[in-house]
Amino acid sequence: MIDLEKFLSRRGRAMHASAIRQVGDIGLAHADLISLAPGFPDPQLFAWDEFRAIADRLLSGSDGSILQYGATRGYQPLLDALPEILSHRGIRATNTEVIITTGSQQALDLCARVLTDPGDVVFVELPAYTGAMTAFGNARAQLVGVRQDEQGIDIADLDRLLVGKRADGRRAAIVYVVPNFQNPTGLLMNGSRRSELLAWALRRDVLIVEDDPYGALYFTDLTSRDETRPIKSQDNEGRVLYLSSFSKTVAPGFRVAWIAGPQPLIARLEVAKQSADLCSGTLDQRFVYEVWTSGALEAGLPRLRTAYQTKRSVMEQALRAELGNAATWVPPKGGFFLWATLPGIDTKALFGRALQHKVIYVPGSPFYVDHGGHDRIRLAFSAASPDQIRNGIRRLADALREEREATDPGRAEGARDGRHSAEETPASTADQ
Amino acid sequence: MIDLEKFLSRRGRAMHASAIRQVGDIGLAHADLISLAPGFPDPQLFAWDEFRAIADRLLSGSDGSILQYGATRGYQPLLDALPEILSHRGIRATNTEVIITTGSQQALDLCARVLTDPGDVVFVELPAYTGAMTAFGNARAQLVGVRQDEQGIDIADLDRLLVGKRADGRRAAIVYVVPNFQNPTGLLMNGSRRSELLAWALRRDVLIVEDDPYGALYFTDLTSRDETRPIKSQDNEGRVLYLSSFSKTVAPGFRVAWIAGPQPLIARLEVAKQSADLCSGTLDQRFVYEVWTSGALEAGLPRLRTAYQTKRSVMEQALRAELGNAATWVPPKGGFFLWATLPGIDTKALFGRALQHKVIYVPGSPFYVDHGGHDRIRLAFSAASPDQIRNGIRRLADALREEREATDPGRAEGARDGRHSAEETPASTADQ
Repeated sequence: MIDLEKFLSRRGRAMHASAIRQVGDIGLAHADLISLAPGFPDPQLFAWDEFRAIADRLLSGSDGSILQYGATRGYQPLLDALPEILSHRGIRATNTEVIITTGSQQALDLCARVLTDPGDVVFVELPAYTGAMTAFGNARAQLVGVRQDEQGIDIADLDRLLVGKRADGRRAAIVYVVPNFQNPTGLLMNGSRRSELLAWALRRDVLIVEDDPYGALYFTDLTSRDETRPIKSQDNEGRVLYLSSFSKTVAPGFRVAWIAGPQPLIARLEVAKQSADLCSGTLDQRFVYEVWTSGALEAGLPRLRTAYQTKRSVMEQALRAELGNAATWVPPKGGFFLWATLPGIDTKALFGRALQHKVIYVPGSPFYVDHGGHDRIRLAFSAASPDQIRNGIRRLADALREEREATDPGRAEGARDGRHSAEETPASTADQ
Repeated sequence: MIDLEKFLSRRGRAMHASAIRQVGDIGLAHADLISLAPGFPDPQLFAWDEFRAIADRLLSGSDGSILQYGATRGYQPLLDALPEILSHRGIRATNTEVIITTGSQQALDLCARVLTDPGDVVFVELPAYTGAMTAFGNARAQLVGVRQDEQGIDIADLDRLLVGKRADGRRAAIVYVVPNFQNPTGLLMNGSRRSELLAWALRRDVLIVEDDPYGALYFTDLTSRDETRPIKSQDNEGRVLYLSSFSKTVAPGFRVAWIAGPQPLIARLEVAKQSADLCSGTLDQRFVYEVWTSGALEAGLPRLRTAYQTKRSVMEQALRAELGNAATWVPPKGGFFLWATLPGIDTKALFGRALQHKVIYVPGSPFYVDHGGHDRIRLAFSAASPDQIRNGIRRLADALREEREATDPGRAEGARDGRHSAEETPASTADQ
């Protein structure tokens, strides 16, 4: 038999599969499972009627360009619309300072390739979005984890790490952050931290890659639009590449996202995109443009915010009722995720047990460059229905009780009644 | 002002814009232009009625997965359909030996990343498809051009180059070919050359990347389906990665293509795709699947073959009538392109003049790794109507006459009446 391994490049060998995608595949394979794992939007919230009407108009055959190859930069009317969409977020950009990408994952991949060479340092939060970690990691950049607190990335830690890496002679000029309802923590970076980060980037001559898929989905009971204002809105010199997407506000199946940034970098990203996929889906871009230009996108946002906020509250109530103080978390002010600590629990070990109870989530450690976060758990409240959320958390509590019983029999009752406080238990070696 | 150049990686700086895409952008910018440049399919041949009916069914909202994130490998029913689609081409593959990509450009990009490291050698035909050249080039592989004759790639030249590169200590294990109606030459590699290439790859332990976007579009007046049988159909040991696409048979706006190959390589390509774009357009894949499963795709192919064959004949007649022996070419047996030699003409210089006459094409040299082919010209007969083709060639003949007059006044009448034979003229320095 032919030895195929030898045909792989070093980078091909070094590529890692995404832990989240693997968990997602489990979810797809078991229909009776309650999945709190992947950060999927709720398809019941998609504007189906609108989409059907748009398709009927677009596919008349009178405009061949709708299904033809398109320009690499993107569908021009959509590019022309982006400055207005961005201005709602306080960002000034012209239509030459934007590019459409095939989902934000492509945006991350293009940034990784255009900005980093193997061995270059990219700073990410601890924890950080795994999709960014794989994009920069597959470009063979060195990911360096930076502490974050409830207000966002820790600038002092970031500075210490930067100085250290530069002293070692490393090229270290990129920091990747998700200030709005971060994946996985759901944290909202506060305003002063945003300003400090930008000022620091200027002082240290660093480029910020700001990823903002969830900013429009803030929860009005805990925050407001003003608090989601991107770092990019304060960027007067082109020091921020701002990534956002229609995946959470229109639908992810369309694969339409974008980057806003200084024109010379956008031009380079366009060249990279040419060889990556020539152009993003032409019909997909038209759908998104039509939904935007009809006003349906903007008009639909309050409904999305309310729906996701409600689901977040359902999840929090269920967690309090079922897990008591066996779980702690910072209340999500927006987005799709609740990030909980289960003190004393190895959440990778718990995963197998949860799967037996037909509920899945994403364990914490894949989000950590330093492989920490063993007692953390990412619970997505976005796609499941309120009933599924309640049942899912109940199943999780059952699994947790069993896990405690197995690892520390004396504390078996701890999960439900909440009498017991956090405590280290031996980590299981089980791995899903 | 901030110095943005310094943020670029070495690979980011080294990336090159595609000459074809640039020419294509010119075409998009001038509506009154006749474009014989980009290899676009004819949108009048798309199955619009079918698409509209499919959209109406799919977008009812009853199945949320239609617009949700999908599996990285692809929409499972489409993956399950590919073995049958491949079997029509004589290829045996299971549904674990295929992956969907966001157009064949992404397939090329993934292959480049998974198979080559900077400095590795990739052999390509002289001339070769520019999209493959940029994909492998942007991965910083070294492209080495191999002679081809009317029957396909020159195995002796390929072997000589491989031996030389390996003697230099270079990793040289990939050859990229387009055996069916190659872009840009339109050439059909003959059967014995295909067998020889595969035998050579086995002997020299080389992996073949076989790109086949046009195979289904053979012209029955000059060839038959049997002659388009891919090299992959003879591959018993997994030595061929076979790329194909629905862009030319369904529509390119959907961005759905695929790779068939040995399972271990497909698994690696899947990991690479995770970080490239998570998944291809979900709705796009559904459209393609529905068109296939309804039988409309297969049923529509004879009509496509006839239409493109007719346009090819219209272009050949126009060339004979307008240019006489000022142009020579091998009659295309399929695909989208007529590749002509204009003896003594610098086709890059001619481009500006042709643009004044409101016709565009792609000059030959961008297709050559060694920057040869200055007197070649790629004319796409695929997208233009018969009338546009006739008018376009007439305009080209006018431009050519002017060009001859400018560079060699004594021969100004040569183009139309065809009395003059090929002759070297000084190359213009003009560049579009």
